[in-house]
Amino acid sequence: MANAVGTLVLLRHGESVWNAENLFTGWVDVPLSERGETEARRGGELLRDAGILPDVVHTSLLRRAISTANIALDTCDRHWIDVRRDWRLNERHYGALQGKNKKQTLDQYGEEQFTLWRRSYDVPPPPIESGTEFSQDGDPRYAGLGAELPRTECLKDVVARLLPYWSDSIVPDLRAGRTVLVAAHGNSLRALVKHLDGVSDEAIAKLNIPTGIPLRYDLDADLRPTNPGGTYLDPDAAVSAIQAVANQGR
Amino acid sequence: MANAVGTLVLLRHGESVWNAENLFTGWVDVPLSERGETEARRGGELLRDAGILPDVVHTSLLRRAISTANIALDTCDRHWIDVRRDWRLNERHYGALQGKNKKQTLDQYGEEQFTLWRRSYDVPPPPIESGTEFSQDGDPRYAGLGAELPRTECLKDVVARLLPYWSDSIVPDLRAGRTVLVAAHGNSLRALVKHLDGVSDEAIAKLNIPTGIPLRYDLDADLRPTNPGGTYLDPDAAVSAIQAVANQGR
Repeated sequence: MANAVGTLVLLRHGESVWNAENLFTGWVDVPLSERGETEARRGGELLRDAGILPDVVHTSLLRRAISTANIALDTCDRHWIDVRRDWRLNERHYGALQGKNKKQTLDQYGEEQFTLWRRSYDVPPPPIESGTEFSQDGDPRYAGLGAELPRTECLKDVVARLLPYWSDSIVPDLRAGRTVLVAAHGNSLRALVKHLDGVSDEAIAKLNIPTGIPLRYDLDADLRPTNPGGTYLDPDAAVSAIQAVANQGR
Repeated sequence: MANAVGTLVLLRHGESVWNAENLFTGWVDVPLSERGETEARRGGELLRDAGILPDVVHTSLLRRAISTANIALDTCDRHWIDVRRDWRLNERHYGALQGKNKKQTLDQYGEEQFTLWRRSYDVPPPPIESGTEFSQDGDPRYAGLGAELPRTECLKDVVARLLPYWSDSIVPDLRAGRTVLVAAHGNSLRALVKHLDGVSDEAIAKLNIPTGIPLRYDLDADLRPTNPGGTYLDPDAAVSAIQAVANQGR
């Protein structure tokens, strides 16, 4: 029999300044808004009050996830734990939509196309052009990626680039019995939840993960959740927040 | 011939709330003051303006060094780099003096004893008692240390516990050609400078490293500085700050 594994906690970053302005963000590296910082502190308080104290944190390479992790861990007195970062935890690359207003995009392209880009499993937005304002060409943090650097992604693409990181980096920490915090984004966490809970391609697009509320997964020795769907550390707030996310862009 | 190595940058944390209150801090995990946060931002601006962009950061396990690194790296757009932390970069353990007022300690024990504890190379303060307010018994971040957990330290002790970390963790990053930021403390950085510059036991105690001003070392293939003493990124501010540190506790 395999040994029991550690606890997994997912934390979606709080509001960024572009969330507040209703812009498609993707890989554009915008900071948290003041409200987002408050959400991160609240996330840390929930961890502290639940006594779920991370031994290691995994973040994307984007400031809003990194700041969320820093603030939450400082709040629950775990600022000193091991840190790992990887582009594979980044938000979905939103292609040519990066930097565009969601409402204007909806008006311009219509409900059907808009929803397809936002909520289909395998239809990416048009790719971003090299050298344009919100492309990641020349960004030193992605210098090692070469041709692997995405120019646009659908959720299916995110699942494909996330899963190797799950297996190679997060699972070993869980197998070592550690409590693992993953501080990341709406779509990279959706990709992870799809894998953990075996959610279908159709259903995953409708699943909204609220910001700033830690989501705990207890895993068995085969890394299957013993609490399918996970457990939010503040279930009431999660219900309200899920509604708010579902109404984004409207 | 060995290959050239990367650049080393030392950064002493900014003012903490206990620096501001003139208390001996050591391993007590106090936060930065508002002034300390400003110093950290200024450190990041100096890195950015000099174009010295860290590829990896090493910190102690103490909040004031970790926050300094987070703020400075966020300021120079390097928040996404690799992070390593270790207790061997911690401040000197100040033993039974931790939590005591420097001025009162000076008045109580007299100039000679006070200076011996603060500035001798090999005379540690009295050890801290287990279970007292400012001891580190039961602190989870040191759980793995066992009997190695210090109860007091002189600078010689800091040198002894720092050097294995230098060789095993920092040097490999430098050998890989990376720009390495070490965000740490007055005495752990003094220990490192002693090693790098071959400073004598007598002279090192008089060497003051100012807070918040990055100190760059260019190293040859044998890890000897080609700029002995290092180069402060803001030399004028360093001169004033060194004076201010020398007058601490008076």
